[in-house]
Amino acid sequence: MAPVKLSDTEVEARLDTLPDWSRPGEEIQRTYRFKDFVEAMAFVAKVADRAEAVQHHPDILIRWNRVTLSLSTHDCGGISEKDFAFARDADAMAAGR
Amino acid sequence: MAPVKLSDTEVEARLDTLPDWSRPGEEIQRTYRFKDFVEAMAFVAKVADRAEAVQHHPDILIRWNRVTLSLSTHDCGGISEKDFAFARDADAMAAGR
Repeated sequence: MAPVKLSDTEVEARLDTLPDWSRPGEEIQRTYRFKDFVEAMAFVAKVADRAEAVQHHPDILIRWNRVTLSLSTHDCGGISEKDFAFARDADAMAAGR
Repeated sequence: MAPVKLSDTEVEARLDTLPDWSRPGEEIQRTYRFKDFVEAMAFVAKVADRAEAVQHHPDILIRWNRVTLSLSTHDCGGISEKDFAFARDADAMAAGR
């Protein structure tokens, strides 16, 4: 089933449950901070494995101990539930769960 | 020995030998394109290993099959030989050498 673009109201409601995420335009974004580059890359490896598994690939920016994920859904030209599902997965991975 | 900031002329001379690299401000940058996300991540893993080995960490942006490396040297507040050395290493890794 093709992903459905969420309305602004729907996006805002979901962001309320994810306080570390923001919406700079037509994507949702969070920057994670780790102890060092090695820990940051360990997180990136997990994110990459998940991205391939679910075939939904965030943009990933690595700046030494910081990793920024940006999520949007090309198939719907905006933000969909897939982005929020991935955001929650990434938060769980960053928390070591 | 602390890295020395290169002059604009010195940076330009080195960029002449690295046509795929540009200089958007106080860093040098190249975007590599791969077959897919898996190949892009394989390159990122190599870059990350090298970065830790030489303790010089590029900013790394992954956008599915594209990887952008941005290099600058904090210790000198600009671009140094370390950046060009890493750029050449990364080019060799991307070429599978």
